[in-house]
Amino acid sequence: MALPKQSEDFPAWYQAVIRDAGMAENGLARGSMVIKPWGYAIWEQIQRAVDDRIKATGHENLYFPTLIPESLLEREAETVEGFAPEVIVATHSGGKKMEDALILRPTSETVIWDTYSRWVQSYRDLPLLYNQWANVFRAEMRSRLFLRTSEFLWQEGHTAHETSVDAIKETALIMRDVYIDVIKNVLKIPGFVGRKSESERFPGAQETITFETMMRDKKALQSCTSHYLGQLFAKTYGVQFQTREGGLDFAYATSWGISTRIIGGLIMAHGDDHGLRLPTGVAPKQVVIVPIYKNDEQASAVLEKANAISTDLTTKNIRVKIDDRDEYRPGYKYAEWELKGVPLRIEIGPRDLESKSVMISSRLGGEKQSVNFDELTGYVIKALEDFDSQLLSEAQSFQQDNVFTPASYDEMREFLSEANGFALAPWNGKADSEAQVKKETKATIRCLPMQDDDLNNAVQNGNFKRPGPAKGTKCIITGEPATEMALFAQAY
Amino acid sequence: MALPKQSEDFPAWYQAVIRDAGMAENGLARGSMVIKPWGYAIWEQIQRAVDDRIKATGHENLYFPTLIPESLLEREAETVEGFAPEVIVATHSGGKKMEDALILRPTSETVIWDTYSRWVQSYRDLPLLYNQWANVFRAEMRSRLFLRTSEFLWQEGHTAHETSVDAIKETALIMRDVYIDVIKNVLKIPGFVGRKSESERFPGAQETITFETMMRDKKALQSCTSHYLGQLFAKTYGVQFQTREGGLDFAYATSWGISTRIIGGLIMAHGDDHGLRLPTGVAPKQVVIVPIYKNDEQASAVLEKANAISTDLTTKNIRVKIDDRDEYRPGYKYAEWELKGVPLRIEIGPRDLESKSVMISSRLGGEKQSVNFDELTGYVIKALEDFDSQLLSEAQSFQQDNVFTPASYDEMREFLSEANGFALAPWNGKADSEAQVKKETKATIRCLPMQDDDLNNAVQNGNFKRPGPAKGTKCIITGEPATEMALFAQAY
Repeated sequence: MALPKQSEDFPAWYQAVIRDAGMAENGLARGSMVIKPWGYAIWEQIQRAVDDRIKATGHENLYFPTLIPESLLEREAETVEGFAPEVIVATHSGGKKMEDALILRPTSETVIWDTYSRWVQSYRDLPLLYNQWANVFRAEMRSRLFLRTSEFLWQEGHTAHETSVDAIKETALIMRDVYIDVIKNVLKIPGFVGRKSESERFPGAQETITFETMMRDKKALQSCTSHYLGQLFAKTYGVQFQTREGGLDFAYATSWGISTRIIGGLIMAHGDDHGLRLPTGVAPKQVVIVPIYKNDEQASAVLEKANAISTDLTTKNIRVKIDDRDEYRPGYKYAEWELKGVPLRIEIGPRDLESKSVMISSRLGGEKQSVNFDELTGYVIKALEDFDSQLLSEAQSFQQDNVFTPASYDEMREFLSEANGFALAPWNGKADSEAQVKKETKATIRCLPMQDDDLNNAVQNGNFKRPGPAKGTKCIITGEPATEMALFAQAY
Repeated sequence: MALPKQSEDFPAWYQAVIRDAGMAENGLARGSMVIKPWGYAIWEQIQRAVDDRIKATGHENLYFPTLIPESLLEREAETVEGFAPEVIVATHSGGKKMEDALILRPTSETVIWDTYSRWVQSYRDLPLLYNQWANVFRAEMRSRLFLRTSEFLWQEGHTAHETSVDAIKETALIMRDVYIDVIKNVLKIPGFVGRKSESERFPGAQETITFETMMRDKKALQSCTSHYLGQLFAKTYGVQFQTREGGLDFAYATSWGISTRIIGGLIMAHGDDHGLRLPTGVAPKQVVIVPIYKNDEQASAVLEKANAISTDLTTKNIRVKIDDRDEYRPGYKYAEWELKGVPLRIEIGPRDLESKSVMISSRLGGEKQSVNFDELTGYVIKALEDFDSQLLSEAQSFQQDNVFTPASYDEMREFLSEANGFALAPWNGKADSEAQVKKETKATIRCLPMQDDDLNNAVQNGNFKRPGPAKGTKCIITGEPATEMALFAQAY
């Protein structure tokens, strides 16, 4: 089960971790993916964390059909260059060609806003704060497990508001209180929150905000997005309402999503040469107990104690697995649970029973610890907390070490021509200088970073105003006056 | 919001409840359904109840792609008349015709067993105990919300075993410890468990077991199914393994599912002329608090107390909603929450604050009760328990009152020619007598009922043996010797 080294072949390492940890494999249809039990159990934990926060911020779940009449997308296409070129289309049903072809949703703005036109008549019907968990489809020629597949799982929120201020507040609230809270505080992945440049926005969005995270190959991964869509969809699909003042207005829209792609991010942000390293909040098992014995008599005593420990920990809501498989040796099991990223391992054998203690080791390394039976539960609780702090702290250091502030465009171009990290530099806000960087380095503007205060301001006041670079600061590419600080990086 | 009367037009009542309670509506694509927040919240509760039990019985979740190469289904079609005629087919991707058409899964046996052929080499790889939550697709010409739609949501379990005994145990275990436990003990819907006759089995199944429930129009609803599939899929897709004895054998399969159809069952098993009546285990809100006030001063005091009550109840894991909408009067709110089926309603106004009590009423009727503040939490907990008991007991009485044991075929035919209930009668086990009943009455054999002991025997010993009718009992249709007791009814 030796993996390729991360430092030598990152893509091969990534594929091998996914395969050997039993997370996913290619499906039969081109570009599709089977999410295997270990990968899916991680997704279930992420879903729970996200869903709890979606509900805590006042949203409800619902479910729209997968199949969307092609004509609806065509209506969208009149106003914006949307998803039409990359859709999968169903044409036959029950052995007959259908009169109207149906597309498999690539995202659901069109069908949802068409429906909202029948749900919204008055300001009293607003806001609509809805979300769905769903599978979505995109024609992908080059697929990569979790990162880019023809079908993936996500949640998509679609809200409708009376005013643009309300909609911008929503866009920012979801980013702060749902996504960043999960990604940073549960997944322990730090990142940069910010606005997308115009060329990187969602089709039809007036603003897209993102949380850009750094993988251990120093590339960026867009971990989620939240869009302020203005009145475009309301106008396209006729979502007009009577205002408080008795007039008529079109509703203001947001949409926001996070997908199984984040599992790829989790692997690449924390994994090492031995495999996954899972934060405790999403580890399907937080503690694995490996019993050690040489004969049936030993087995019976050791397993009895292992079960007692497991029961104790389980009552503290810790997720425990006893690996009592007889067909594998302890060393094999250690390597397997390391690969799967389980935070803590407890070894217990006949001598441990005598000394009334067990050996505990952390997936983050360090010495094995001997811990007495009567201190075990407290030790484990503390060790899990420490595990998460250390994981976040390592990822934060790695990110800080790999953010570069270039002094000149030559320096920036050199830095970005390979995946050396993120470059933070002043930009004139124009598409042609952005395109120049992309052409010359393959790096893109990942976001125009917002500080905590900027995000809090957007949540509270419903605008994305923030101080630009100091007066006189010059665009690193063109030397013209800079309007933004921009974060550049090669990305997934 | 007056509904059609159940007794006068059951189908119109059903549609109106779904519409007015905000549960679902038709989607844009033919036969499709939008599941609205109240309907989806009920589904989430059902999902949680089912999923907890699926995991408690040792299964793991995973996820297979929606799109299945058409050729796989064709391989199945060589051995069994499966789903090919009723599938929806995708033919284009990214603007081009695909080389191989892809069908939208109607169920996933084919793709899963094809994949299992790569996961199973040895008896050590068995059993595979996997489940997925997914959307599935069937070409439906006549759709009916929740009961029959072109897309619906379900879970589908697919397990592989070393022996037929193990697979039969699994088939029965899922029925007893997952489905019946949820349907009877959580949804409070009684029913008949039993085997399907050969003509009513799942394509390729050697046995299908079902739980048949009675709706308030006295028709039957198949609430779930669990299939013992023998070695058919293993042989079709090459799932062969090395046995403990060193030989080769094909794996034994089960599959089992419950879908959003059960929401239709929930509506029709418990609803009355005022709308839904939801068992507490799946009611998105178990208690609604309606505050009553005439001015801002009153509002402030009443809402403060309502919030305090809500907090108290929430700490006891009771799901509470305060309906503080200013734009509706209390009477309107009462009717709306009745329609939505919330078990308990608490009314609180200024006079209640003075008397330190509230008025509580149950969705099942009876007098409003005045309950003191300091007894409220205990009262509510008890009232919710009583609510569930009464709901089950009502449904059980209704079912018992409408099961008929006909003395002759003429009597049975007369009884079944309208939806008068379930008829229980001896049958010769032959397809032609079964077909005769269907033709002459529209009723079908819903199941060959199993007693609790029969089901326990199947779980423990892995066989479906059970005593048939007493020797000398004659088939009610033909007068030939009876081999089975059969349950006949008109069905959804």
